[in-house]
Amino acid sequence: MKFEVFFSPAAVDELGMRGRNVVIIDVLRATTTICTALRNGAREIIPAPDIENATKILANLSSDARLLGGERQGKKIDGFDLGNSPAEYLPEKVSGKSIIFTTTNGAGAIYKCRYAATALVASFVNMSAIVQTVVEIGGTWTILCSGRQGAFSVEDATCAGMIISEVQALTDVDTEDAGLTAVILYKSFKRSILAMMKKSMHGKYLISIGFEGDLALCSDVDSVPVVPVVSGVSVKLKYPVPDPPPKTVQTT
Amino acid sequence: MKFEVFFSPAAVDELGMRGRNVVIIDVLRATTTICTALRNGAREIIPAPDIENATKILANLSSDARLLGGERQGKKIDGFDLGNSPAEYLPEKVSGKSIIFTTTNGAGAIYKCRYAATALVASFVNMSAIVQTVVEIGGTWTILCSGRQGAFSVEDATCAGMIISEVQALTDVDTEDAGLTAVILYKSFKRSILAMMKKSMHGKYLISIGFEGDLALCSDVDSVPVVPVVSGVSVKLKYPVPDPPPKTVQTT
Repeated sequence: MKFEVFFSPAAVDELGMRGRNVVIIDVLRATTTICTALRNGAREIIPAPDIENATKILANLSSDARLLGGERQGKKIDGFDLGNSPAEYLPEKVSGKSIIFTTTNGAGAIYKCRYAATALVASFVNMSAIVQTVVEIGGTWTILCSGRQGAFSVEDATCAGMIISEVQALTDVDTEDAGLTAVILYKSFKRSILAMMKKSMHGKYLISIGFEGDLALCSDVDSVPVVPVVSGVSVKLKYPVPDPPPKTVQTT
Repeated sequence: MKFEVFFSPAAVDELGMRGRNVVIIDVLRATTTICTALRNGAREIIPAPDIENATKILANLSSDARLLGGERQGKKIDGFDLGNSPAEYLPEKVSGKSIIFTTTNGAGAIYKCRYAATALVASFVNMSAIVQTVVEIGGTWTILCSGRQGAFSVEDATCAGMIISEVQALTDVDTEDAGLTAVILYKSFKRSILAMMKKSMHGKYLISIGFEGDLALCSDVDSVPVVPVVSGVSVKLKYPVPDPPPKTVQTT
């Protein structure tokens, strides 16, 4: 198998990703949150590149079972239902809902992959499920790290390195400079993923605004074993959690 | 001291670099070649973002002591005097000359730094000279890796990591995700810089087009101990090699 890694989406556009098999990573926190929301029963996540688009999509959705989620500067956007902490996306809030989702880095990176052949949403929390799916499909893969405002982020690159490293344990892998670097990073941090996050720029920032607990959630390998797949305009589970039984309406 | 690293100039523009102290790296081969040319007596290197600009600058230079140098796809450009191999920039060719220089990655990165407060041109060949200058000036530095067509290149990132690592041996250093990663890369490759280059994407490409010898030149740490500084439109030595004595004109 073959892996190419982009450390940020800055040099990537929709057409460049068209037809590729892609894994998108935004460990802190968008892709971790998407895994959590879908595991907890959300029907779908609709990534939006910006707030204006998110509110337009909201207006166009006929269903009432919809929520707005996302962040700017790590904080919930004014008027939105949910922020970008995986801890907020509880079953009682998200089950059965379509969630329109806009974040600074991850949602935009996913949006850029809407013409990909296959686009999977990955994080440490669904590592083994992603590795298994990638190996099943085989061939050539692009790993797109969301990074931080166009720049490099160590937690995304380490997660990319873990994917390649785990695939290498199963089959032959060919990669390039960035993939090689990601694997070296992962080997350096494999026993201390949480410590690495606490040292990272975005980790430090999240701690400073009160989200230290999220770092523990986001570094908990294989705790949310789902495979979110970009499908048309939204992200859904590859193997959906069954719909909850319809609520019986109590008549008075 | 503080270091910020960019793994490619894709997310960087002239105004973003304005007023900064910058070190520019393009190990394979532009910054190695610039060091070599200046050590061998070139008066100055004038970076040009593209071939059209290079030939315009040539037309506007009044002096006859000028050469065109550079590459596309690693090879000498048609009609140019020199390519981008440090081995070509011999004293008998370059001494006293202004060299207009356009390359795919490095020359453009240098061009983006023309409004920096200080911009130094670095490579493995002038490592200690750069580290000494950076520490003398002190403060906050940006390291701009030229990368490869907007993407990451392992040899530039490793060189950035060596600079930070050598400065760390002398004084306290604060850095961010990319700087931390560069240092980890350097520690992984410090005993095998040449082997790393041979494994790199651009190193493999240069070998494929017949420039394997350049990899040995470009990995020879401290072999060209000069400090090239961007000064206005050109790159010159901080401590210039004395001008050669004027030629006595033979009258017949």
